[in-house]
Amino acid sequence: MLLNCDLGESYGNWRMGLDEEVMPFLDQANVACGFHGGDPLTMEKTLKLAAEHNVCVGAHPAYPDLVGFGRRSMALSCEELRSTLLYQIAALDGMAQTMGVRIEYVKPHGALYNDMMADGAVRETVMQTVAEYVKPLRLMLQATAESDQHQKEAAALGLPLWFEAFADRCYDDDGRLLSRRKPGAVHDRARMLAQVEQLAREASVTTVSGKTLALEVDTLCVHGDNAEGVQAIREIRQLLAHA
Amino acid sequence: MLLNCDLGESYGNWRMGLDEEVMPFLDQANVACGFHGGDPLTMEKTLKLAAEHNVCVGAHPAYPDLVGFGRRSMALSCEELRSTLLYQIAALDGMAQTMGVRIEYVKPHGALYNDMMADGAVRETVMQTVAEYVKPLRLMLQATAESDQHQKEAAALGLPLWFEAFADRCYDDDGRLLSRRKPGAVHDRARMLAQVEQLAREASVTTVSGKTLALEVDTLCVHGDNAEGVQAIREIRQLLAHA
Amino acid sequence: MLLNCDLGESYGNWRMGLDEEVMPFLDQANVACGFHGGDPLTMEKTLKLAAEHNVCVGAHPAYPDLVGFGRRSMALSCEELRSTLLYQIAALDGMAQTMGVRIEYVKPHGALYNDMMADGAVRETVMQTVAEYVKPLRLMLQATAESDQHQKEAAALGLPLWFEAFADRCYDDDGRLLSRRKPGAVHDRARMLAQVEQLAREASVTTVSGKTLALEVDTLCVHGDNAEGVQAIREIRQLLAHA
Amino acid sequence: MLLNCDLGESYGNWRMGLDEEVMPFLDQANVACGFHGGDPLTMEKTLKLAAEHNVCVGAHPAYPDLVGFGRRSMALSCEELRSTLLYQIAALDGMAQTMGVRIEYVKPHGALYNDMMADGAVRETVMQTVAEYVKPLRLMLQATAESDQHQKEAAALGLPLWFEAFADRCYDDDGRLLSRRKPGAVHDRARMLAQVEQLAREASVTTVSGKTLALEVDTLCVHGDNAEGVQAIREIRQLLAHA
Repeated sequence: MLLNCDLGESYGNWRMGLDEEVMPFLDQANVACGFHGGDPLTMEKTLKLAAEHNVCVGAHPAYPDLVGFGRRSMALSCEELRSTLLYQIAALDGMAQTMGVRIEYVKPHGALYNDMMADGAVRETVMQTVAEYVKPLRLMLQATAESDQHQKEAAALGLPLWFEAFADRCYDDDGRLLSRRKPGAVHDRARMLAQVEQLAREASVTTVSGKTLALEVDTLCVHGDNAEGVQAIREIRQLLAHA
Repeated sequence: MLLNCDLGESYGNWRMGLDEEVMPFLDQANVACGFHGGDPLTMEKTLKLAAEHNVCVGAHPAYPDLVGFGRRSMALSCEELRSTLLYQIAALDGMAQTMGVRIEYVKPHGALYNDMMADGAVRETVMQTVAEYVKPLRLMLQATAESDQHQKEAAALGLPLWFEAFADRCYDDDGRLLSRRKPGAVHDRARMLAQVEQLAREASVTTVSGKTLALEVDTLCVHGDNAEGVQAIREIRQLLAHA
Repeated sequence: MLLNCDLGESYGNWRMGLDEEVMPFLDQANVACGFHGGDPLTMEKTLKLAAEHNVCVGAHPAYPDLVGFGRRSMALSCEELRSTLLYQIAALDGMAQTMGVRIEYVKPHGALYNDMMADGAVRETVMQTVAEYVKPLRLMLQATAESDQHQKEAAALGLPLWFEAFADRCYDDDGRLLSRRKPGAVHDRARMLAQVEQLAREASVTTVSGKTLALEVDTLCVHGDNAEGVQAIREIRQLLAHA
Repeated sequence: MLLNCDLGESYGNWRMGLDEEVMPFLDQANVACGFHGGDPLTMEKTLKLAAEHNVCVGAHPAYPDLVGFGRRSMALSCEELRSTLLYQIAALDGMAQTMGVRIEYVKPHGALYNDMMADGAVRETVMQTVAEYVKPLRLMLQATAESDQHQKEAAALGLPLWFEAFADRCYDDDGRLLSRRKPGAVHDRARMLAQVEQLAREASVTTVSGKTLALEVDTLCVHGDNAEGVQAIREIRQLLAHA
C-alpha cells in the first residue's frame, strides 16, 4: 500500500502544507495545477521537490475556484469539465517534462473528486478525459463498495485505476466517508493507525456501525497540513514497513 | 512571407475576434493560453479550427492579467516569468497533442511582447524558457534594426527565431512601431498594402520620416478583430500570392 | 410595468451588450458588479450612462465565476454567499454614490438567481443580506405561482420586493420558465409582444399548455445583447405606452 | 504616534497574519479589499475583529494581482487605477457600514504604495480618487523628505493626510527605505526599538549614513506576520506608552 498526499497547494505569497517535510515519506504526490491552488512557480518548486525524493507525480486538477479552494461543487457542462481537466493536466505535464519528471496519474481535487464519486456523468467525463490524454495516465479514485463497477467503467476506456483509502476518516456502511459534520468522522491517532493496519493486513475497514467492509486499496491518502499530520505520516510509514 | 494572427482570445461567454472567418487565410495561429484570454474550452475549439485548416499553431502566453487583457506591463521576477510562460506553453501543448496537433512556436502577447523587445532581461528569460521547453519550439519576435543582435542571443541558446513585421503599423527610424497615440501610427488600407508589398519585394519598410529601413521578415502579423480586418487579410493574401 | 435589463457585463477588453443603445429605453439597469462581468471601469461607465438617462440602478451580483459568466450553480455556504453579496452590492453602491447616483435594488444574476428561486436556503440568505444592507434596497425576483409565499418571507424581514416577468420566454404551468432546451422555450417576436400585452392588460401569461396563469408583475426583463434585442425593446416600450 | 498594521490578508482557505493576536495592540487596521488578499468573508471577519477592539479601519486597496500579492508594479491607466481604487474602497466601506463600522482612511498596498510614493501621476490619481470618494477619508502615505510637497498636493484637493514611518526598516538619506536587498535594510530588535524611540521623542530617524533626518510621523507601520512580529508590537506599544 502506497502513500499519497496533496501537495503544492500554496498560492503566490500564501503558504499551505509542510511539503518539504512530508515529501520524503511519500510515494505519490498529488500536485495542484493552478485552479484551486498551486501557481506556476509553486508547481515548479513542487515538481523539483518530488524529483529530489523520487516521488511519483500526479496531476491534482480542480474546479476553477481559488477563493473556495475547489471545495464547492460547480455545475460545469461536460465539455467545460473536459477542457478544464485537459488544461490543468497538460500544464503540469509539460512543466514536469521540461524538468525531466513524468506525471503518472490524475487525482481530482475536492468537490470535483466528490462529484466524480457521486455522479456518474461527472465520472464518465473524468474517465474519458484522462483516458484520451496524449500519454497513458492512471486515474486515482476512492475505494468503495462500487469499486468493481468503477473498474468496469474504466476498463471499457482502457483506463487503469488506482484505488485509495483515507487513513483518518470513518467510513459508513456504503464505503463512503462519514460527513465531517458528524461525530466520529475523523479518527484520533490510535484509531487511525488501527484502520491503516486493518487496510494493510485484511483489506477492510470497520465502518461506523461496526461492520467489516472489504476495501481493496492501492494507496492511502495522508495529509501534511501541519506538524501533527507529518508525525502521523511518519507513524503510518513505520507501521506499513512492518505490516 | 507567412501570415500570423492572434486567435482564441475569447473568454467564457465573451466573444472576441472572427476566428472562423480568418483561419482559412492564415499560416500561423497564435493561440491564447488562458492568462489574458482563452479559457480552456476556447483553446480546445481554436486548436480544432487550426487543425481543420492545417494552420501551424503557436502558444501566445501573457502576463496574468485578464481584466487588462495582458496589455499592462507587470514587474514579474525572472523566475515568476519563467514558470508563468512554461505553464501556459505546456497547457496549450498538452491540449494540442491530445487533439493530434503540434505546437511549433511561442509568441508572447501584449505588454509581455513589448517588454521582451525593450528589456534585455525579460528577453533573456523568454528566450531561455522557450529554449529549455521539453520540445523544440521557435520564438516569434519583432523584426527591428536589432534583429542581428537578437539572432545572436537566440543562437547562443540554440533557439530558432521567426521575425515578424506589422502590416498596418507605421515604423519609426529605429524599426520600432510608432506609438498608437501619434498621428499616422496606423496605416489606411492603401498604405498597408504598399507596406506589405515593399516588405515582400524589397525586405524593407519606409519609416515615418521617409527613410528606407531594411527588415528581414519571416511572417506578417495581421488582425481579425472585425470584418474590415478580415477583408484586409484577404487582400494581403492575394497580394502575396502575386508578389 | 417597468423595463429592466442586465447591463455593464463587459469585462476589460471584452464587449458585451449594446448598453448605450438600450439604456434610453429602460427604467431599471441591473449593473454587473465584477464577479461574472463588469470590471470597475465598466461599472463606472455604466453608472454614468444610467445617470445620463435617469435610469434607476440596481446591483446585479453573481457567483464568483468569470469564466462561467455566473451561469453555473456553485455550492457556497450561507456565510460565503452573504459576504459575497455584501461585497458586490457595496462596491457598486459606493461607486454610485461617489458619482451622485443612488442604487435602489438588488437582482441576483444567472445561476444565483435560479438558485434563489429554487432553493429556500439560498433565498433566505439573499433576502436577509439585502434586508440588512446599510441602506434600504429592494430585491427583484421572478413572479411565479409562489409570489405570495415569497412576499411573506420578505415582509418578515422588512424587505420590499419587485416581481419581474420575462418578455420572450415561455412559461410552464407552475410559472417557471420552460427550459431553453425545450422547443418553444423562447418566443418569436409576435408571441413576445402578445405576452407583454397580456401581462400589461390582464396580469397573466398563457402557459405552454395553454392555461392562463395570473402573474402580478412590477417589471419586465428585456435583453440588449444585439440589434434584434434592441429593436424588441423599442417595440415593447411602444406597446406599453399604449397599453 | 499611532500603530497601524496590514490585516485581513488571508484569502479563502489560505491563512496569513496573526490578526487576532495583533488587533488588540493596534490603533489602525489597514484592511485588504480583495485584490491582493482579503476575500469577502475574510473582510467581514476582519471588520468584526476591528470593531471588537475599537480599532480605526482603513481600506488597503491594491493592484489586481492575487498571485503576486499586489507586490508587482502594474501599468494601469489613470482611469483604470481610479475605478480600481473606488471599487475596493467602496466594497469595504459598504460592508463596514452594514456592520456599524466606519472606515476612516485609505492606505494603498504593496507596489501601488511604492508607485504612489515614486510617481507623481500615480500619486495624483490616488489623491484625487480618495478626495472624491463620497465620504471624507484620509490618505496614509510614507513620511519622507518630500512630505511638505505631498502635503501641498493633498491640501489643494482638500485631502487630509496621515504620514507613517516604518519601525524596522533602515532609511537612506532621502528618507526612502533602504532596499531589502541591501545589508542592514531591516533592523534587529534593538535598533528597531531605538528607531521608534527616536521617532517618538525627536521626530527623526538616523539614516544608513548616520545622518539625522527629520520625519514628522502620525503613525507607525508594524507587522503581525508571525509570533516575533507580535512580540515586537507589544514592545513598541510599551515603549510608546512611556515615551
